[in-house]
Amino acid sequence: MTKRFQVVGIGNAMVDVLSHCEDAFLATNGVEKGIMQLIDMDRAVDLYARVGPAKEISGGSAANTIAGIAQLGGRTAYVGKVKNDQLGAIFVHDLRAQGAVYETALASKASEAETGRCIVLVTPDGERSMNTYLGWSEFLAPDDIDTAMMADADWIFLEGYRFDGPQSHAAFAKAIAATKGAGGRVSVTLSDPFCIDRHRAAFAKMLREDVDLLFANRAEIKSMFETEDFDAALSAAAAQVEIVACTDSENGAFIVNGGDRWHVPAVPTKVIDATGAGDLFAGAFLWGLTNGHELESCGRMACLAASEVISHIGARPEADLGALFRQHGLL
Amino acid sequence: MTKRFQVVGIGNAMVDVLSHCEDAFLATNGVEKGIMQLIDMDRAVDLYARVGPAKEISGGSAANTIAGIAQLGGRTAYVGKVKNDQLGAIFVHDLRAQGAVYETALASKASEAETGRCIVLVTPDGERSMNTYLGWSEFLAPDDIDTAMMADADWIFLEGYRFDGPQSHAAFAKAIAATKGAGGRVSVTLSDPFCIDRHRAAFAKMLREDVDLLFANRAEIKSMFETEDFDAALSAAAAQVEIVACTDSENGAFIVNGGDRWHVPAVPTKVIDATGAGDLFAGAFLWGLTNGHELESCGRMACLAASEVISHIGARPEADLGALFRQHGLL
Repeated sequence: MTKRFQVVGIGNAMVDVLSHCEDAFLATNGVEKGIMQLIDMDRAVDLYARVGPAKEISGGSAANTIAGIAQLGGRTAYVGKVKNDQLGAIFVHDLRAQGAVYETALASKASEAETGRCIVLVTPDGERSMNTYLGWSEFLAPDDIDTAMMADADWIFLEGYRFDGPQSHAAFAKAIAATKGAGGRVSVTLSDPFCIDRHRAAFAKMLREDVDLLFANRAEIKSMFETEDFDAALSAAAAQVEIVACTDSENGAFIVNGGDRWHVPAVPTKVIDATGAGDLFAGAFLWGLTNGHELESCGRMACLAASEVISHIGARPEADLGALFRQHGLL
Repeated sequence: MTKRFQVVGIGNAMVDVLSHCEDAFLATNGVEKGIMQLIDMDRAVDLYARVGPAKEISGGSAANTIAGIAQLGGRTAYVGKVKNDQLGAIFVHDLRAQGAVYETALASKASEAETGRCIVLVTPDGERSMNTYLGWSEFLAPDDIDTAMMADADWIFLEGYRFDGPQSHAAFAKAIAATKGAGGRVSVTLSDPFCIDRHRAAFAKMLREDVDLLFANRAEIKSMFETEDFDAALSAAAAQVEIVACTDSENGAFIVNGGDRWHVPAVPTKVIDATGAGDLFAGAFLWGLTNGHELESCGRMACLAASEVISHIGARPEADLGALFRQHGLL
């Protein structure tokens, strides 16, 4: 029987506040380049007051992935918490308008924590440095997981960033049990090397026991398997997880499935804003996989989608990804 | 004595909600193409639910003008009302971060009206159709006008759209009196042909009695002087107003000063989003004027700035306008 959803994503619901700056601004303001740092509301207010004019665009790693799948026509849903405030309304609107199912209990206007936001500082090289105030998104808990929805998904997609939060590990465990109990499968993205450092044991246990498809980049997979040898890290991952899809910046990506390994070249483009590259890689890969495409083709679609999203400001696709895949002979 | 401000702008404080759509969407949803329509909150909610994923970027016609002057290094300030909500915080941030002075009494969180927003629908030809919920911005009143600030301005810049509102005519009168009383001068933009229809008598009186510099486009100046003859409209305007700066889309602009008339060609570019073209035209023109440039040069700067802002999404400049003027030999 066809399940209702090809992919259900769970992650931190965020509106991105995108602003350009020089590298010197990062150093002066204690922002580490190229990674995600968690900040509290005071720091968010202080940093926001220092950055230049900005654009507000819905983001959130797994939400970007789900938006990509929805844009491709995939049957997809998202789970993540926002407040009933203006940024929350923007986040809800943008996911639904893209075609994803997003039913969430909005936190009331009286709640102290606001909808999460991420101050994304884009330097002239297109690299992004993310400063995340989790806000209400931090409180995702088992009660937020609808087991019927998970059971009706071919795949769930878990965002590594969501490991930060008092009850999120329990929420993930509930989602995994409901999915697997109904024959569904589990994908996860490692999200960030520093996030791995914060939750290494939980990640390791999940990889050993539950994960069928792992997304990571070079730095993350090396951090996860605690080795400087990228090749060894790929092999270690593949020994635990059926499919490994690992990005390697301008060198493209590696897809590993048991003894098979494919290298997929990146699609060259001028990098305007790297935000969302990994998210759209995962989205296109999962869409390809759940539509019966070969793993190598899934990797090619993933690299094309990543290339599209870094060619403009914002972490969600603007071009028609399906048309792009057809242009490149993948559909 | 040098005044503190070269230009103080007064207008509707707005955050733009920018979304792409096909022309058929406009027809289906009763949106008239290429103009500004006022909508209430119910219509704003209903229309927002129908549009696709969007980007939120600070807008507001006069605020865009002031942002352009600030980006050029001009001494400038803005007057317009927002609420102490998340969109209000975005609007305040973006103007201040651009370098403009913006001191406003924020409406309290308890106020019913929210910060104004404009749902901007951009069709494939780059034309924009604007749907404005004025919100708190509508209630600009004489009490919001700081006469000391107006007296300390070489020029004030009045947004025609701001004629919509119960106390805005009185607020404008107060601003004009304070400015002129201290030897300052008055510029105004007609904003929109339908806005002229709503407030024809008030516009006419202001042009006869107070205005030193008029900004308009072809449709607006014809509507204002109730003639189908563009040339006659320009002459009628010039008979009342010292300087007329009138845009004419891809045909550029006409600058009229008494018996002198200059035609300035447009700077060709691919139109991505026409939002803000007139606003940045006015900003660059006023910056040039208050820095002692000849009227024709002011017109050339204005066309360059308009060309920059229509080459990307959003109504505020992204490229360095000063660098652009230098490249074209204007500085």
